[in-house]
Amino acid sequence: MNVTLIGSGNLATNLGHALKNAGVGILQIYSHTLDHARHLADALGVDAVCDRICDINTMSDLYIVAVKDDVLTEIIQSLKNHLLGKLIVHTAGSMPMLSEGVFYPMQTFSRQRIVSFEHIPIFIEASNESDLQILRKVAEQLSDSVYELSSDDRRWLHIAAVFCCNFTNHMATLSAHLLEKHNIPFSVMLPLMDETVRKLHSMSPSRAQTGPAARNDEQVMKHHVDMLCEDNETSLSKLYQQLSQSILTKAY
Amino acid sequence: MNVTLIGSGNLATNLGHALKNAGVGILQIYSHTLDHARHLADALGVDAVCDRICDINTMSDLYIVAVKDDVLTEIIQSLKNHLLGKLIVHTAGSMPMLSEGVFYPMQTFSRQRIVSFEHIPIFIEASNESDLQILRKVAEQLSDSVYELSSDDRRWLHIAAVFCCNFTNHMATLSAHLLEKHNIPFSVMLPLMDETVRKLHSMSPSRAQTGPAARNDEQVMKHHVDMLCEDNETSLSKLYQQLSQSILTKAY
Repeated sequence: MNVTLIGSGNLATNLGHALKNAGVGILQIYSHTLDHARHLADALGVDAVCDRICDINTMSDLYIVAVKDDVLTEIIQSLKNHLLGKLIVHTAGSMPMLSEGVFYPMQTFSRQRIVSFEHIPIFIEASNESDLQILRKVAEQLSDSVYELSSDDRRWLHIAAVFCCNFTNHMATLSAHLLEKHNIPFSVMLPLMDETVRKLHSMSPSRAQTGPAARNDEQVMKHHVDMLCEDNETSLSKLYQQLSQSILTKAY
Repeated sequence: MNVTLIGSGNLATNLGHALKNAGVGILQIYSHTLDHARHLADALGVDAVCDRICDINTMSDLYIVAVKDDVLTEIIQSLKNHLLGKLIVHTAGSMPMLSEGVFYPMQTFSRQRIVSFEHIPIFIEASNESDLQILRKVAEQLSDSVYELSSDDRRWLHIAAVFCCNFTNHMATLSAHLLEKHNIPFSVMLPLMDETVRKLHSMSPSRAQTGPAARNDEQVMKHHVDMLCEDNETSLSKLYQQLSQSILTKAY
């Protein structure tokens, strides 16, 4: 089976390495940006195609489109015109199927950091059973955690991932910002963050909740809000109050 | 050296086990609640004292007070009266020294989950050098990560920890809530959360930020907010917007 990878960003780079390591043949890497396409294609030892959709080889069994959501619809339309009858899928958690299927590895990817796909859940969807079989076959070569999921459920999965990953990372950013102002290295927080997440492997998040808001410690919360205000951290003080309120009142 | 532990909650329970495992002698466990005191004292094989401060043995070298913040001042005052001239310290991140010192292991503790103290940062403070030496000696028997920190800096450390731990856990709670409504098990999120935190060991949080807000993907953000509103998740929709705004504008 041959795969063509459309895109050369954070996800495409990681997916490219995972496919190669799993022994899946990659025919070409396509990217809008020559440098990026070349860089990834060189790392994987495959051909790069830059910008011209018509240069994409039509011999692949599967075309995986891993580009930004805002250009996804347009690129898929161009690919459909060029690759008549071919299996084209995308990797976007928040988008409907658009073409024949979806291949969504749910993880936070950075181009600079190549991660193992072994335990990354991959959510697949296809418009017919034979396409689904192809997607499942490729997904199972990469990961031990493959699920079939509808577009509608995938949208919810994606929002949930924004909370778990993007917003969690932002909590770390705000924390690092406060520590930096007071000359404390962010690294002291890592054992705490590690344990916060490790705990969730054996305890539900609502049961694992600790801290001033969980024990309704009004004095500490007020003190924290005052400190943030006095330190001109208006935006953080607001977020602190809203998040504490959300924990306290369980208004979700 | 003998230590007496005042408290039998999440932190006291974990600290008790860590002290015992490190070979530090525990003379007594004091708790307001008989059941809790007995339970912990039995687990550690030491004497339990319930409710009556005057029953606390005055022969310990160090009294560590690990109780809720809102009763801390009162208990320390009673201990001071009973234990004249003894070294009394507390474990609260957000409180000033109150007595001779502070012994703050920064971690999220649950009574049901006994964790290793090996890499837990312990922040110590004392009113004089000889007390500080005692605290350092005990702390270094538990952890490879011991820091001296002033009360003022500790307050900031504690707020930062609320963001990194308590608010991060709440992000998981909100995520689990959304998934539950759509019959998706929360466990699919764990590889993503693991990697989100693992990344921070080698990348600053601001550099590690990904997601719709980080790439200013207005369409996806608007779509998510609409979905939450339509699903009657007003509170989550508000939080989604505020957190996205905070990532987008870097207004911190």
